[in-house]
Amino acid sequence: MREGLSVNGERLMASIFELGKAGALDDGGVCRLALTREDGAGREYVVRRMRELGLTVTIDGIGNIFGFLPGREETSPVMMGSHIDTVATGGLYDGNYGVLAALEVVATLRDKGITPRRSVVAAVFTNEEGVRFHPDMMGSLIFVGDYPLEKALATPDHDGVTIAQALRDIGFAGTGAIDSFPVDHYLELHIEQGPVLDGGKIDIGVVEGVQGISWTEFTLVGVANHAGTTPMAMRKDAGYVAAKIMAFAHDMAHRLGNGQVATVGRVSEFAPGMVNVVPNKVVFTVDLRNYSDDILKQAEKELWDFADKTAAEEGVLLSRESLVRFPPVVFDARVKDLIEEEARSRNLTTLRLPSGAGHDAQMLARVCPTGMIFVPNRDGISHNVNKYAEPEHLTAGANVLLQVALGLADRD
Amino acid sequence: MREGLSVNGERLMASIFELGKAGALDDGGVCRLALTREDGAGREYVVRRMRELGLTVTIDGIGNIFGFLPGREETSPVMMGSHIDTVATGGLYDGNYGVLAALEVVATLRDKGITPRRSVVAAVFTNEEGVRFHPDMMGSLIFVGDYPLEKALATPDHDGVTIAQALRDIGFAGTGAIDSFPVDHYLELHIEQGPVLDGGKIDIGVVEGVQGISWTEFTLVGVANHAGTTPMAMRKDAGYVAAKIMAFAHDMAHRLGNGQVATVGRVSEFAPGMVNVVPNKVVFTVDLRNYSDDILKQAEKELWDFADKTAAEEGVLLSRESLVRFPPVVFDARVKDLIEEEARSRNLTTLRLPSGAGHDAQMLARVCPTGMIFVPNRDGISHNVNKYAEPEHLTAGANVLLQVALGLADRD
Repeated sequence: MREGLSVNGERLMASIFELGKAGALDDGGVCRLALTREDGAGREYVVRRMRELGLTVTIDGIGNIFGFLPGREETSPVMMGSHIDTVATGGLYDGNYGVLAALEVVATLRDKGITPRRSVVAAVFTNEEGVRFHPDMMGSLIFVGDYPLEKALATPDHDGVTIAQALRDIGFAGTGAIDSFPVDHYLELHIEQGPVLDGGKIDIGVVEGVQGISWTEFTLVGVANHAGTTPMAMRKDAGYVAAKIMAFAHDMAHRLGNGQVATVGRVSEFAPGMVNVVPNKVVFTVDLRNYSDDILKQAEKELWDFADKTAAEEGVLLSRESLVRFPPVVFDARVKDLIEEEARSRNLTTLRLPSGAGHDAQMLARVCPTGMIFVPNRDGISHNVNKYAEPEHLTAGANVLLQVALGLADRD
Repeated sequence: MREGLSVNGERLMASIFELGKAGALDDGGVCRLALTREDGAGREYVVRRMRELGLTVTIDGIGNIFGFLPGREETSPVMMGSHIDTVATGGLYDGNYGVLAALEVVATLRDKGITPRRSVVAAVFTNEEGVRFHPDMMGSLIFVGDYPLEKALATPDHDGVTIAQALRDIGFAGTGAIDSFPVDHYLELHIEQGPVLDGGKIDIGVVEGVQGISWTEFTLVGVANHAGTTPMAMRKDAGYVAAKIMAFAHDMAHRLGNGQVATVGRVSEFAPGMVNVVPNKVVFTVDLRNYSDDILKQAEKELWDFADKTAAEEGVLLSRESLVRFPPVVFDARVKDLIEEEARSRNLTTLRLPSGAGHDAQMLARVCPTGMIFVPNRDGISHNVNKYAEPEHLTAGANVLLQVALGLADRD
């Protein structure tokens, strides 16, 4: 740690509001789905900032953006980053804060004329949210070599536009190959997306790890029939079976406890959709998460067994598809200690806590020691246009990121 | 009854297949939503048939079509009719059969040179299904004077096209006023839309009455939140409350018995609709029906109480709107006896049964003695493109209609 070194909080906040103009909604929120024109505008802002800071910018085949600050020696770099795509009703901070804080760290090093021993890289990963294209955390997953680039490039959105086309449309189709490079350490700064730090008046969260995630899409097929003339016992009601499974998922999560959560977020089909016709087709998703893979597997099994039994009893056909399945991740123990030490040296209160949301950091953890820093999020509101964080917390988090990144980059 | 008088079954079937070409689907079904171009084509076919039979055609302000066969005396007419609009996945027979059988009855009278004492009218009522425009049974409801024409004409579909505009677009905007006229008796012939006659190998159903109908639209508003980071106990999950209410409605109908049915047919909103976001808004309908208004009221109360309690427990705001509420209807006792007598004189088996579906006949029953005749429907499949009826049953039903209508029109 270099005593007295701090980021410029006002410059950081100004950059957050500037990036927030790309895809701004009337209500103060942001809609910047991955690889849309709005995402293109956001990317151009970030690349311009990188160039202003004298960083060498490279863009890889999936559109990940890397800004390099060369170190004193030729070694693998310390990487800081996150993403700038948002959900349809996103806020100013999710992802954006991690990217812009990384640039603020670099700007601070530049201001003070500091060149660390190792290179430092600021990274923007493509399509972390997974709203427009599946799977989520795509850019980081491809960067670490665990998803085929060709498959990703051929992935269409709901309108049939492929990622390859979308990248070309916004001018961010990179070299065509993934120039993966060894990473020394990865650090990601993020607002909590939950209520724990805000509720406990804690300044800095030291993230233990990330929940395992299981996304399942259920498709139920029954028989369309007249609502008035078909006795209850003679129905094959796909909507009824769906409702039973949806309610079961929620009640099961309550019952299992131990951090188990269950969410039915999307009903993409409810057909034919007439008031007086028994529905014959319903398609919906269930999102299950836990820090324990054992409990997560138990939740999956209980849900699937209940769904199969309920569908069979009603005479409805059930099929299910796994959309996403990531096991839980535990972050590097030494990086957690470093984050805690740097925060305490600044008289910031800390708490070790898990992350309920997925992050690019969980992909990088597969290839290098990785850590995540959380700052409080007012009222714990996440994935919502009203998501809000205090400037002092955002600045404090960036200062911890600065010290941890510099400590790692300068170490022998 | 005039001995030996029978309709021409082949001509009837040919007209059913001919009308089925308007809005025909590839799978054999029909999509002819009210006042669409397809409905216009169907109406033109019916009007052409009426004119070929020498009927005087009039079209009223809501687009109801009447074909008059003058009787020997100036009296109020005996009316036969139904509708020709369908649901999105409709079949060949629902509604169409009642209209075309009425025309076949008139054709048979013409063939035999019979002029009854009273006039006979074949009627086509607008928008019975209520899929494109609310409420259903609109044309007959306006004809009997219980719904304002101006309100109906201003009613928009989902694209904002009003009924007034849709009527003009297909050339069926009538005189602009409802020329309601006294009706002596109303008769409607229909396939059962249920499994009872087919299951019991019964030829002719004598309809006791029509179920009371209650349609309620529920709107639930919770808080959108991150699926991974929000503990179950801190959620205000609109989708969970919706699922509980949907499942309750179904289970309650089972429990109440006594013919109670409950259907959740439409989920028109499930927002924001992302896999990893707790839903903050869900809009869905519940259709409740019973022959007993007391049990129907009990079902409504139980459902509303459960919904209010469940929403309050989850911290979700609930509002509900009554879309449709019709009390049960009992048809004319003497007309039921007549139908039974005419059927038996043709050695057809009969059964008295209620109608689970709504029909234009229930509106006409408010202003004149009314009866409905059902014929079997294979496998009881209704509101489904696979709906199917046997030509021999369709012909037998038309023969009963012929004899009952002629008996009423010829009586002193």
